[in-house]
Amino acid sequence: MGTFIAGDWGTSNLRLWLCRDGQVLDRAEGPGVAAVPGRVEAAFMEATAAWRDAHGPLPALFCGMVGSSIGWVEAVYQPCPADVRSLASGLTRFKAAGAEMAIIPGLSTTNPQGAPDVMRGEETQILGALATKPELRQGRRLLCLPGTHAKWVLLEDGTVRHFQTGFSGELFALLRQHSVLGRGTDGLQPQAGAAFDRGVERALTKAALPHLLFEARSRQLLEGMTAQDALSFLSGLVIGADVAGGLAGVSGDLDGPVTLVASPVLTDAYAAALRVAGQDAACLDGADLALAGLFSVHTNSLSSKA
Amino acid sequence: MGTFIAGDWGTSNLRLWLCRDGQVLDRAEGPGVAAVPGRVEAAFMEATAAWRDAHGPLPALFCGMVGSSIGWVEAVYQPCPADVRSLASGLTRFKAAGAEMAIIPGLSTTNPQGAPDVMRGEETQILGALATKPELRQGRRLLCLPGTHAKWVLLEDGTVRHFQTGFSGELFALLRQHSVLGRGTDGLQPQAGAAFDRGVERALTKAALPHLLFEARSRQLLEGMTAQDALSFLSGLVIGADVAGGLAGVSGDLDGPVTLVASPVLTDAYAAALRVAGQDAACLDGADLALAGLFSVHTNSLSSKA
Repeated sequence: MGTFIAGDWGTSNLRLWLCRDGQVLDRAEGPGVAAVPGRVEAAFMEATAAWRDAHGPLPALFCGMVGSSIGWVEAVYQPCPADVRSLASGLTRFKAAGAEMAIIPGLSTTNPQGAPDVMRGEETQILGALATKPELRQGRRLLCLPGTHAKWVLLEDGTVRHFQTGFSGELFALLRQHSVLGRGTDGLQPQAGAAFDRGVERALTKAALPHLLFEARSRQLLEGMTAQDALSFLSGLVIGADVAGGLAGVSGDLDGPVTLVASPVLTDAYAAALRVAGQDAACLDGADLALAGLFSVHTNSLSSKA
Repeated sequence: MGTFIAGDWGTSNLRLWLCRDGQVLDRAEGPGVAAVPGRVEAAFMEATAAWRDAHGPLPALFCGMVGSSIGWVEAVYQPCPADVRSLASGLTRFKAAGAEMAIIPGLSTTNPQGAPDVMRGEETQILGALATKPELRQGRRLLCLPGTHAKWVLLEDGTVRHFQTGFSGELFALLRQHSVLGRGTDGLQPQAGAAFDRGVERALTKAALPHLLFEARSRQLLEGMTAQDALSFLSGLVIGADVAGGLAGVSGDLDGPVTLVASPVLTDAYAAALRVAGQDAACLDGADLALAGLFSVHTNSLSSKA
């Protein structure tokens, strides 16, 4: 299959793997595309210089925001319903550094609220999840990929029927770093437990979120809630609102639990929130799913070219 | 009635008036309490030095965050139901600069969502509104004071039955200044019109706000929405969610339109959002209502001492 570079290049991080015959020979990291405006190609050359010195020109396959308007070359979205197992047929190809580069397309959809929605990078993680957990290829499955922008994905027999984005990770980060609600929480992290669950319960009432958010302050002023508990409560509010929206987007029965794909800290928090909402969850470590998806697309792109 | 200083001292601003016999002799401004931690008294002395040089020691009457834990002297909250016309009986008094100082208490309540809630400063504006618009003293009236933290207040025959806080102004400021949703909006301001109304409509569906927020981005990516329209849409989403929460907090009939108290820019935006929700609104310029309320408390505090 030859040696190639697999890259998961998002807004904030670049993760690179040097691959051959389904094996990872080496790993590297670099800046997210937002950190290198106008010099994305140069950033790639720097991050891979040693590998190219050793191996000569190397083809590369990417997923993520590298295919967006702030990335390297724009890759058009593939509309839903979309079979992520055929992503290889929609690659955006170009030449750089004397080798073939390819970017996996993102997905677009009309989400359950009737609004346009997009993802870039998560489609490759979903493909990785399907490769890792074959049972996800059958039936009606709800996947959630928590993160800066959480993606709630409805799979029907392995096809992405639709998805929606919860602006939850970024919202929580804004609130704790820049708002009066985060005052006094430096060095603290949200914790599982009663305060988090209470925030989730409040969010599940579907009262207006701007009104619920202020409780993270007023409960400190009037009920003696500690800054630690207020932070956990705030996390519960935001994740609870995300969970309420994600579950509301799916009508009809689901097969199996909600599958959560992210780092263990995030999937544990979402699993706890889903439990408060009466929903079972299964957690999948997202760390290497992008790589699994990139491997899968690489294999398929070679066979489709043959 | 003697010469005295009236002060509206909030988190971000200090506004001072030199008053005698119901007239304003002079005005001054100064830093909000958040800007002068540990030296609130010194900040007051600086801001009023010229007046005290001319008139000798001067008593002062304050409302706002000056009575909070980050202020000068903590003034206990008065619980709801609360008749703001009797605020004078709950003043926190102390001596400084050789004169009598007094701080008007804030209000506390259990809000319509069953959570604790607080205000400091708005109670004095409400009193000013009652003094300015006598019809507000009768019947069941919904007041909204939009701002960093919007207050939705239910008045029954002039008594504050309960209120709730929408974390809307601060939320919008965070989103536009620090989030990906505000990208490309430097120098722009939200505008009235179709994009704003559409944001309000989306919020009134009561879909989860984290999911609606991302539309301000995806509509730019997929529908060619301009940055200007996205900003107006985002404003409509946040104000619409606030309006949905505010209206949901009141069951039963209201007398008259919703009374909006703030700067004209803010009251116009909230009136437009209320119109989309099928609710009439009347706008009241909030600029001098705090002063009107301070005058009213000052008069009552003298008569109650007599």
